[in-house]
Amino acid sequence: MSQQQRELVHRILRDAPFDLGGVPAVQRPLLDAMLTANPLPDDVRLSDGELAGVPVVFLDIAGTESRGVILHLHGGGFAVGSARGSAGLLATLARKSGMRAVAVDYRLAPEHPYPAALQDATAVYRALLEQVDDAATIVVSGESAGGNLAVEVLISGLRAGVAMPAAALLFSPMTDLTVSGDSYRTNAERDPNITAAAIGTRAKDYLDGTGTPAGDPSVSPIFADLTGLPPLLVQAGSHEVLLSDATTLAVRAAAHDVAVTLDVTPGVPHVFQAFAAILDEGDAALDRAAAFLGAHVRAEPSAAAA
Amino acid sequence: MSQQQRELVHRILRDAPFDLGGVPAVQRPLLDAMLTANPLPDDVRLSDGELAGVPVVFLDIAGTESRGVILHLHGGGFAVGSARGSAGLLATLARKSGMRAVAVDYRLAPEHPYPAALQDATAVYRALLEQVDDAATIVVSGESAGGNLAVEVLISGLRAGVAMPAAALLFSPMTDLTVSGDSYRTNAERDPNITAAAIGTRAKDYLDGTGTPAGDPSVSPIFADLTGLPPLLVQAGSHEVLLSDATTLAVRAAAHDVAVTLDVTPGVPHVFQAFAAILDEGDAALDRAAAFLGAHVRAEPSAAAA
Repeated sequence: MSQQQRELVHRILRDAPFDLGGVPAVQRPLLDAMLTANPLPDDVRLSDGELAGVPVVFLDIAGTESRGVILHLHGGGFAVGSARGSAGLLATLARKSGMRAVAVDYRLAPEHPYPAALQDATAVYRALLEQVDDAATIVVSGESAGGNLAVEVLISGLRAGVAMPAAALLFSPMTDLTVSGDSYRTNAERDPNITAAAIGTRAKDYLDGTGTPAGDPSVSPIFADLTGLPPLLVQAGSHEVLLSDATTLAVRAAAHDVAVTLDVTPGVPHVFQAFAAILDEGDAALDRAAAFLGAHVRAEPSAAAA
Repeated sequence: MSQQQRELVHRILRDAPFDLGGVPAVQRPLLDAMLTANPLPDDVRLSDGELAGVPVVFLDIAGTESRGVILHLHGGGFAVGSARGSAGLLATLARKSGMRAVAVDYRLAPEHPYPAALQDATAVYRALLEQVDDAATIVVSGESAGGNLAVEVLISGLRAGVAMPAAALLFSPMTDLTVSGDSYRTNAERDPNITAAAIGTRAKDYLDGTGTPAGDPSVSPIFADLTGLPPLLVQAGSHEVLLSDATTLAVRAAAHDVAVTLDVTPGVPHVFQAFAAILDEGDAALDRAAAFLGAHVRAEPSAAAA
């Protein structure tokens, strides 16, 4: 893979005006602008809608029959980011996996602290489950804070006796709101745009006034009992300060008898898959994610009949 | 996957007369008998030979053109096991990956303590490298103690400026001779046949009289600088006492900028891939190993021409 590509992505992230730790109202348009800078291919269809009263964006590839649906939770530290900001990553993943996607515009902190986002994500998962009528055709995915929500949706679903999806995809998940991972220190100089201070700010926004401590298993899945979760694919870049969040979640899942694959790509930053169009490592990681989905997702009846 | 299959494998291992912590001269034939109980398919060709003066077993599938070679290091705590004992696992892997294999009968402890086994494995790797003339067509693999040797061959090769193979496959690698992993405690009741005491005995055989402490990076790769290693696939079962050896190695590799995949299968024991013929999880894990090899190994010129 290309050292030049990695350097370009590093520069884009380092030099972008977006600051994850900044004022949310200012940062929201900056992150969306960065994530939607490249136009989507013409055959990617996006439409706004709602499920269980929660705004969502539906995405599919024109002219293809989908074999299942990816319920996606965007990143942005619970305070910024949007469903449409994930469209680039989801379009690539949908094409490679032959699946369609539903991205959730869950309520954001600090205006809506925990558990608003989790409630929204959970409501969409249950509505989708009713709609498709077969959990084995659903995958839950999430980036960064969305990876946190993805795991928490599954944990709370397990407690409530809700059917589990076929699998979960976690891209650089933020799993520890106590901000304790070793990689905050070891990767401080290598991560182009995320810092422990920024994560701490966003964790505070998510939790302030809720009475829920940062180490609570319902906001920091590395402290949760993960027994019973469906197969997980956890991807991360070796240069991100959140590397330990990913590796610790995988190690915990393994200890709790979960089928888990941890897939670390060297020399790349947080959610590097969002740069698949200009970074071979991102494209290759989404190929592996699609292969993982192919091994776990049962095709929807309509797709099987097609 | 089948609960019945997992229970059968558990019983086979629990009830087998083989004891990893027993007297090597007694245990060697018992382990070989267990591992060679199922006859190999008729098209699997085995032949004895030597490379660099070290005895090896060559394995390939009749009627196929190989796209590369797997240099394999068997398990058995450095003190038991044999190249032919790995033939079942290697035959399945060779068929799935389209590669041939060379399994090394490295010298065993306690008769030949560290570094005899590592010297033998290293000598075979270098001889193979000269023979095939393209490191990108070679994969190094190992089970258990052989996984330890596989990583150490690569580390010592890096120091010596030797070309790295395309990738390494590590099946339940024993990576910490200080026997410190959490899973020795958490999986003590779930592992059917391996104990901390047995591993401690075998580590002592390997190291006694050598002056090398158990925490030395050349015998416990979790304490080594892994920077520069080729892509690693680390597979383990969630029920093995050596689970932490696998997960810790993967976490360390990630921190050292290695492309690493940790792949944990729930509910199965140490080197469950050896039971692929009767355990769906073992077969599926070798499918994933073969896919990993397909992504990393450059086909040999002869195979490309075929």
